Amino acid sequence: MDLNADVGQSFGSWTTGGDPAMFQLATSANVACGLHAGDPVTMLDSCRAAYELDVTVGAHLGYRDMAGFGRRSLDMSFDELFGDVLYQLGALDGVAHAVGASVDYVKPHGALYDTLIHDAEQASALVAAVNAYDPGLPILGFPGSELLKQAKEAGHPVFTEAYADRAYFADGTLVPHAREDAVLNDVDTIVERAVRLATKGEVVAVDGSVVRIQPDSLRLPGGSPAALEAAARIRAGLEAAGVELEAFA
Amino acid sequence: MDLNADVGQSFGSWTTGGDPAMFQLATSANVACGLHAGDPVTMLDSCRAAYELDVTVGAHLGYRDMAGFGRRSLDMSFDELFGDVLYQLGALDGVAHAVGASVDYVKPHGALYDTLIHDAEQASALVAAVNAYDPGLPILGFPGSELLKQAKEAGHPVFTEAYADRAYFADGTLVPHAREDAVLNDVDTIVERAVRLATKGEVVAVDGSVVRIQPDSLRLPGGSPAALEAAARIRAGLEAAGVELEAFA
Amino acid sequence: MDLNADVGQSFGSWTTGGDPAMFQLATSANVACGLHAGDPVTMLDSCRAAYELDVTVGAHLGYRDMAGFGRRSLDMSFDELFGDVLYQLGALDGVAHAVGASVDYVKPHGALYDTLIHDAEQASALVAAVNAYDPGLPILGFPGSELLKQAKEAGHPVFTEAYADRAYFADGTLVPHAREDAVLNDVDTIVERAVRLATKGEVVAVDGSVVRIQPDSLRLPGGSPAALEAAARIRAGLEAAGVELEAFA
Amino acid sequence: MDLNADVGQSFGSWTTGGDPAMFQLATSANVACGLHAGDPVTMLDSCRAAYELDVTVGAHLGYRDMAGFGRRSLDMSFDELFGDVLYQLGALDGVAHAVGASVDYVKPHGALYDTLIHDAEQASALVAAVNAYDPGLPILGFPGSELLKQAKEAGHPVFTEAYADRAYFADGTLVPHAREDAVLNDVDTIVERAVRLATKGEVVAVDGSVVRIQPDSLRLPGGSPAALEAAARIRAGLEAAGVELEAFA
Repeated sequence: MDLNADVGQSFGSWTTGGDPAMFQLATSANVACGLHAGDPVTMLDSCRAAYELDVTVGAHLGYRDMAGFGRRSLDMSFDELFGDVLYQLGALDGVAHAVGASVDYVKPHGALYDTLIHDAEQASALVAAVNAYDPGLPILGFPGSELLKQAKEAGHPVFTEAYADRAYFADGTLVPHAREDAVLNDVDTIVERAVRLATKGEVVAVDGSVVRIQPDSLRLPGGSPAALEAAARIRAGLEAAGVELEAFA
Repeated sequence: MDLNADVGQSFGSWTTGGDPAMFQLATSANVACGLHAGDPVTMLDSCRAAYELDVTVGAHLGYRDMAGFGRRSLDMSFDELFGDVLYQLGALDGVAHAVGASVDYVKPHGALYDTLIHDAEQASALVAAVNAYDPGLPILGFPGSELLKQAKEAGHPVFTEAYADRAYFADGTLVPHAREDAVLNDVDTIVERAVRLATKGEVVAVDGSVVRIQPDSLRLPGGSPAALEAAARIRAGLEAAGVELEAFA
Repeated sequence: MDLNADVGQSFGSWTTGGDPAMFQLATSANVACGLHAGDPVTMLDSCRAAYELDVTVGAHLGYRDMAGFGRRSLDMSFDELFGDVLYQLGALDGVAHAVGASVDYVKPHGALYDTLIHDAEQASALVAAVNAYDPGLPILGFPGSELLKQAKEAGHPVFTEAYADRAYFADGTLVPHAREDAVLNDVDTIVERAVRLATKGEVVAVDGSVVRIQPDSLRLPGGSPAALEAAARIRAGLEAAGVELEAFA
Repeated sequence: MDLNADVGQSFGSWTTGGDPAMFQLATSANVACGLHAGDPVTMLDSCRAAYELDVTVGAHLGYRDMAGFGRRSLDMSFDELFGDVLYQLGALDGVAHAVGASVDYVKPHGALYDTLIHDAEQASALVAAVNAYDPGLPILGFPGSELLKQAKEAGHPVFTEAYADRAYFADGTLVPHAREDAVLNDVDTIVERAVRLATKGEVVAVDGSVVRIQPDSLRLPGGSPAALEAAARIRAGLEAAGVELEAFA
């Protein structure tokens, strides 16, 4: 099982701070590429840390919206998104290359991630850009998303992720953040769900039904001390359950 | 002799407009990389046009200052400039790669260009970044500049440029823009100087002395209809004088 | 009748260029405020020109998206839009004040304009912000829009605009740009429609029906030599028809 | 004696965090205006907090450089700086106005602060802009700076500040950050220096000499838990020494 985590989300003097711990916990690091978060120095630091700790580097692709951290949907044209994806991918690869690392997968971030679950045009722009860059580059995304459907059709290796700390509906979709029960807070429950996802490929939905997901990766929580604690507990729980942890890419 | 020109300097809806003509005249295209000018769609268009017309693509590296078009000096640390150079280089290479092209040299832009004539620390940051990216990548700059000195020491192929439309002092430095006689306007004179630079490697300074420069490239004027006209006349004049035009890289 | 025009849309070294002509033709100038277009120097120049030629200054409020020129819809929260509106309004007012002018109305730009036709939450954010700034500030918008409905309820003077060069449906809405017949190009027709809008308050829709609009302002075309020519012809046509031109605010 | 502190330096999702404590300690709040730090929502929150706690709001004016936090000197023209100052001042005033507050002084930030100690042209641009905005607006700066000299000549009320936690040379200038002894860390010493500055207007320089400064304001340390602790101790020390604390403006 792979554990992916968001890193490199500092910007200039503003630091987010959880990265050192995350590089110890994750097997795949989603590195921000400077459009929604991240800056070249942070990208260098992230790639260096990942390389030293044998964590796989992925390009965390987002909308060009620093003020919104890439969390606001932006109605871009095919050409604009195609360009912005190539730009981010190339920039991170250039930075990674300088420290001996390389970009081994891509994953969309924030509002772009959500948009690509359903939006066929934006999905086609992202897939076309990644394909123009490297037709064999793996793409990590949400199971059943338009993105993964198109990526697979284009011949890309595709990988799916699941969230041990998010509530699911019976159809395998996530309970939206607007609902109070969207995010789980009890760490024991989160760890238990992580182990079940990793060992049996299933999760209990809000209606009590069991959903088969069989993810290739679990997304580690982050962004706060409590989230980091949960992430550490998830990793420890998986190791205790005998789950072998390694990057999917 | 190589003819280099600044292209890809549009940004979003703001277009500069001289590019189609420039791709017909230049042998090397300095493509802006999105920090001082340029955006991914413009970069794609520029790389595509260069590739189709067999013009060599170079990364036109600038300060992170869209509002100032990279023409305002910015006091960056080694790490910041190192990062910003890698970021631009990688981004342009990623974009170029997608259309079959590649980045075959780098050239600093605007205030960064001027700063690197004398500033040892910023020069070392740029050279270190280019070196980390590709130790064989050619660097185009001003003769006698700190940049080219350090680039040469680092083992990079270095190339020099001259300006047929700029006034020179007897020591081979340019008359600064603040002086009224900094830029030549008479096109016949400009063409004559271009031919002399290309065939004899020399230019007449403001005090009447003859300066030996032996440039590898001439920088074509641009940015206005008059400048484009001068650029076209320079190319025609060089061809009429039997000068073979080809990219240095 | 008022004639409103978009001005001040340059950014740093990128100039749009039609402003001098527009300040001769318009009675109200929609000045970009630095988030989707415009910069402080351009804003100063625009306010100065408007002040000298007795053109009323309005704040042209847009999304924070320079790369997209404010033409891409952005899913902002109430607080974010409330803040960005106040920021733009205050910034333009500060600049205007320095040259003796003042901001006498607001008008949304681009994708924000389109969004505010229907989106109740974003409309409430904009109205709340303008209201917090100055409860008596006039708001110019599209007839029947959610924006004007809420602005009126909040006690703001509201004014409507029409487009002589855009096609209308029978219900008074605009034919979207995606359709080929969205924009009229025949200048004689445009002038004729402008005169009819100004004198009779009506326009012929794409189905041939006559739509009553009774606008307070006509939006002058701009952004190209052809558009400027049409704008000049509209003004001349209105004057020839005896229409008195003056700012609504 | 006034106590001034930097606040409102968050940007989008990146929060700095010390503001709530600072609004309890300072009498004057330097609020970032969105070019080097700050965003409209943060500006609103800052002005609201200042208004509720009776802290005076000042515009903390900086270079247009988010990635560098305004700490990198930028070689701007008179017109560019004039415009950027008016833009920031107006934007903050617009935001402040919406919550019942107002901008009652200005203070330069970071590299602009340092540049204005000596640079006559940038100082004249800032003073001209503040003067165009409000000829009676107080300006807070470093004693003996070019900025305060020009501001005084232009008729502005000028106020000086001192740093209890920074080392001084015998001529009243600050020991630069590049030197190891630039910043004091012993809180008892810092408090003692603050009291002496507030009660006797003097500070002991690095060579042991006593420098007369007679500041109107002390700048509170910030940006880290240790700095906040020092700031709290400074305020407590001043109150214990019977120093009356009130805003200068």
